[in-house]
Amino acid sequence: MITLTELKCLADAQSSYHILKPWWDVFWYYITLIMLLVAVLAGALQLTQSRVLCCLPCKVEFDNHCAVPWDILKASVNMSSHPRMPLPLPLRIQNDLHRQQYSYIDAVCYEKQLHWFAKFFPYLVLLHTLIFAACSNFWLHYPSTSSRLEHFVAILHKCFDSPWTTRALSETVAEQSVRPRKLSKSKTLHSSSGCSAEVDSSKQSLPYPQPGLESAGIESPTSSVLDKKEGEQAKAIFEKVKRFRMHVEQKDIIYRVYLKQIIVKVILFVLIITYVPYFLTYITLEIDCSIDVQAFTGYKRYQCVYSLAEIFKVLASFYVILVILYGLTSSYSLWWMLRSSLKQYSFEALREKSNYSDIPDVRN
Amino acid sequence: MITLTELKCLADAQSSYHILKPWWDVFWYYITLIMLLVAVLAGALQLTQSRVLCCLPCKVEFDNHCAVPWDILKASVNMSSHPRMPLPLPLRIQNDLHRQQYSYIDAVCYEKQLHWFAKFFPYLVLLHTLIFAACSNFWLHYPSTSSRLEHFVAILHKCFDSPWTTRALSETVAEQSVRPRKLSKSKTLHSSSGCSAEVDSSKQSLPYPQPGLESAGIESPTSSVLDKKEGEQAKAIFEKVKRFRMHVEQKDIIYRVYLKQIIVKVILFVLIITYVPYFLTYITLEIDCSIDVQAFTGYKRYQCVYSLAEIFKVLASFYVILVILYGLTSSYSLWWMLRSSLKQYSFEALREKSNYSDIPDVRN
Amino acid sequence: MITLTELKCLADAQSSYHILKPWWDVFWYYITLIMLLVAVLAGALQLTQSRVLCCLPCKVEFDNHCAVPWDILKASVNMSSHPRMPLPLPLRIQNDLHRQQYSYIDAVCYEKQLHWFAKFFPYLVLLHTLIFAACSNFWLHYPSTSSRLEHFVAILHKCFDSPWTTRALSETVAEQSVRPRKLSKSKTLHSSSGCSAEVDSSKQSLPYPQPGLESAGIESPTSSVLDKKEGEQAKAIFEKVKRFRMHVEQKDIIYRVYLKQIIVKVILFVLIITYVPYFLTYITLEIDCSIDVQAFTGYKRYQCVYSLAEIFKVLASFYVILVILYGLTSSYSLWWMLRSSLKQYSFEALREKSNYSDIPDVRN
Repeated sequence: MITLTELKCLADAQSSYHILKPWWDVFWYYITLIMLLVAVLAGALQLTQSRVLCCLPCKVEFDNHCAVPWDILKASVNMSSHPRMPLPLPLRIQNDLHRQQYSYIDAVCYEKQLHWFAKFFPYLVLLHTLIFAACSNFWLHYPSTSSRLEHFVAILHKCFDSPWTTRALSETVAEQSVRPRKLSKSKTLHSSSGCSAEVDSSKQSLPYPQPGLESAGIESPTSSVLDKKEGEQAKAIFEKVKRFRMHVEQKDIIYRVYLKQIIVKVILFVLIITYVPYFLTYITLEIDCSIDVQAFTGYKRYQCVYSLAEIFKVLASFYVILVILYGLTSSYSLWWMLRSSLKQYSFEALREKSNYSDIPDVRN
Repeated sequence: MITLTELKCLADAQSSYHILKPWWDVFWYYITLIMLLVAVLAGALQLTQSRVLCCLPCKVEFDNHCAVPWDILKASVNMSSHPRMPLPLPLRIQNDLHRQQYSYIDAVCYEKQLHWFAKFFPYLVLLHTLIFAACSNFWLHYPSTSSRLEHFVAILHKCFDSPWTTRALSETVAEQSVRPRKLSKSKTLHSSSGCSAEVDSSKQSLPYPQPGLESAGIESPTSSVLDKKEGEQAKAIFEKVKRFRMHVEQKDIIYRVYLKQIIVKVILFVLIITYVPYFLTYITLEIDCSIDVQAFTGYKRYQCVYSLAEIFKVLASFYVILVILYGLTSSYSLWWMLRSSLKQYSFEALREKSNYSDIPDVRN
Repeated sequence: MITLTELKCLADAQSSYHILKPWWDVFWYYITLIMLLVAVLAGALQLTQSRVLCCLPCKVEFDNHCAVPWDILKASVNMSSHPRMPLPLPLRIQNDLHRQQYSYIDAVCYEKQLHWFAKFFPYLVLLHTLIFAACSNFWLHYPSTSSRLEHFVAILHKCFDSPWTTRALSETVAEQSVRPRKLSKSKTLHSSSGCSAEVDSSKQSLPYPQPGLESAGIESPTSSVLDKKEGEQAKAIFEKVKRFRMHVEQKDIIYRVYLKQIIVKVILFVLIITYVPYFLTYITLEIDCSIDVQAFTGYKRYQCVYSLAEIFKVLASFYVILVILYGLTSSYSLWWMLRSSLKQYSFEALREKSNYSDIPDVRN
């Protein structure tokens, strides 16, 4: 059977990408997990409940609803103005149907009269959640974005390990790990000196006091202590970063993919918010079931109880709350992406503070 | 289906953060696990019990409660002062209802007459526990705190590995692993010499006999045995720690996030303590059920037995005890955080004991 | 039971090959997972439902369909023009069969009258999905291709690590990680200088502005900084690449295998699209069952309800949509492979830009 863990792996991404995720991605991940919990719970309830629908025939129909037989009898007795006759009360109602006949009625009423939303609610929640999860992780799996991101993460790790960028890193690492997403999205691997320029893009929106970026590239005095081999490696990283920056900046594919997946999420959010509360009213405890099985049971009209109605209503309401939370966050992140011009960035603030005025023009 | 393991991963944090946790965080983690156990147990009981509610019709109603038919008969006989007639005793009561009719009654009574608290108890416990767990781990997942913590842990590990801080570390590691939380919370990476100054903040509350802190930075004689490359690395770590300290101290976001999540926990604790014991009285074994199904069964009033009543009462009481333990610990940690001014720290005690009087002013 | 996780590992490939996969392979992988989800869900439904088929005997047959007994009685009464006689209504229909007899009927009708497609639907989905998954991963498991690919990946990793190709790599790595599939498929390990020439093949379709390829092989000035041992290693890699290229280019087995597995997929896609929607109409809720068990039950004709009909119809439709998505992508990738002549490649563009005009003719 299907467990939460198995579904989770569909929603999960590699842990190496966690530094690329802003807070709303973390938030979405947890909401997705709880949505999966709701889906699995609803599915388990539907599968394990042996008698989801329980129907009883309508012995006497009166004024389009099921009536108590002796009430009608009494009424007719009263109308005919006969002298009062004592009626034995309470009378039991016996349908004299076999269990197989009841099962038949239950099955037919379930298929024909139960609203589709009440039937497929667990599957719908599962489907929505998988779409949400797929949207969240699309940019980590779609090759032309994932390769760039992977490359970015690899370079980042190499920069961390490289000895000659240690000083530069010590300045940038704090900011870097806070909002690396912006970097990757805004394609701002400026390659000025190893990785130090990445600070820049995040500077726009974050009021971090920039420590003077002594972006000590190969020109810096610290590099003098490095031996020849390390110098080569440093050059290699430098080259890599430069190439990567050019490669990434030419196309804003990561930005566009991320934007698109947020737009899909917002659309799905609006869709769910529109139709789930509407159909929620169709999940009712009591179901009036008129089916043509008179040839097999003798009765035409049945009254059924849908035992999952209440719990499904509660779960659906809870699910709608989760979707609203998800959708509001998506809308916020969409607004954030459209408002802040992630593609432009300037080195002015950096130039003023640092001693190196030629950072963006640095060449090997 | 949903198992404890799957839910645990929702409550669990990465093991790398375990050094950041004070004793109450560890305590909370284990209470959370037991709460999840209660939730899963209650849920499993509700799912697997095929006949949670078992109802029987009331044949004779007398004085608003179900009476034994022949008792009434006897009473009327007595009242009419007839000569005594021997009544055949005991008489069995036959309802002549089909199993399907009983199932129908059970389902309707369960949905309409069983108190919502008795119905949704497992889900409520699960929801509470997930909120508690989310609160506990929020600061480890919220990007702007988690990145700082991750960075702190990474530096800490680098300090451990670095050869020139070994001596200094050997003195600090004892204190460090006891209360590292305070450090990160109070942002006291003082960078005096790699990691040695971290002792300081924990000294305020812990009466550890301070070993004279020979915070052997680059100036210390121990560094003379290090070759050039290691010296560079040492400088790099030193730089990193300095930058990290500045970066972290400017904003007390970790402190505020941790404080907020404790406040949320205390509020939730008060809420649960208020409403769960109140609704606990609504979980009763015997349920009086008057439903309008006379048209299908002939009877109007039923008496039901809720077979999960007792076990749910026991589980709920146990849960309340767990919540009280959790809440008291939360209140204590809140009091601890508000009482001890974690943001101020002095090096006076250190200065007196150590030979290095310039620790807080140390610069590279 | 069979869980999703267990099936997933059948569809999954080693993660080391993920750089060989173009976007459609990633897309296929996720569609395969969802198909497996459908198969497992359908299988679980069929296994856990205790009463899949529920049959009732036909008491009175009239005009080749089951009729209500008293309707026929009334009709005959009307036809004989007798005075109206009040008929007691509603009459219940009692079959007076035992539960065992019903079970017997259910079992026989399930085996003999239920359409095979409705019976074996979960197994068919599972089988299709496994064939799709096997086709996707065949070239990664078939020895004469997998060994070449493994070798290619190993050389690629060695090139990444090698110090003297770092500069060359810095130029190619960006393009390389975007579309490495093309390389391996088109067998373009040109061995001109380590790995730099791989850019070429991807240049055909990608409009990347080629950075001047200073394909600094052993002849380049950067190699002067390398000591003797590294030079040896470089030579070794160079030799390896050359041999590998010759070995691969002699036979285009990878290309042919990949093409064949795409063709198999397209054929399977057409097959499924043809027969599943056709047989979908055979999954009906109500099944007319005429079996020769009169000797044991007294009745000859039965009416059955197949309780999984609707959910199977929904799942099958969803499955068909998934297969259409899969098939369209397969057709696209087939078209892409046949259109772009992956076996020819020219170095003209490269020659013009780079200083090295002898790249394709390079010899050690």
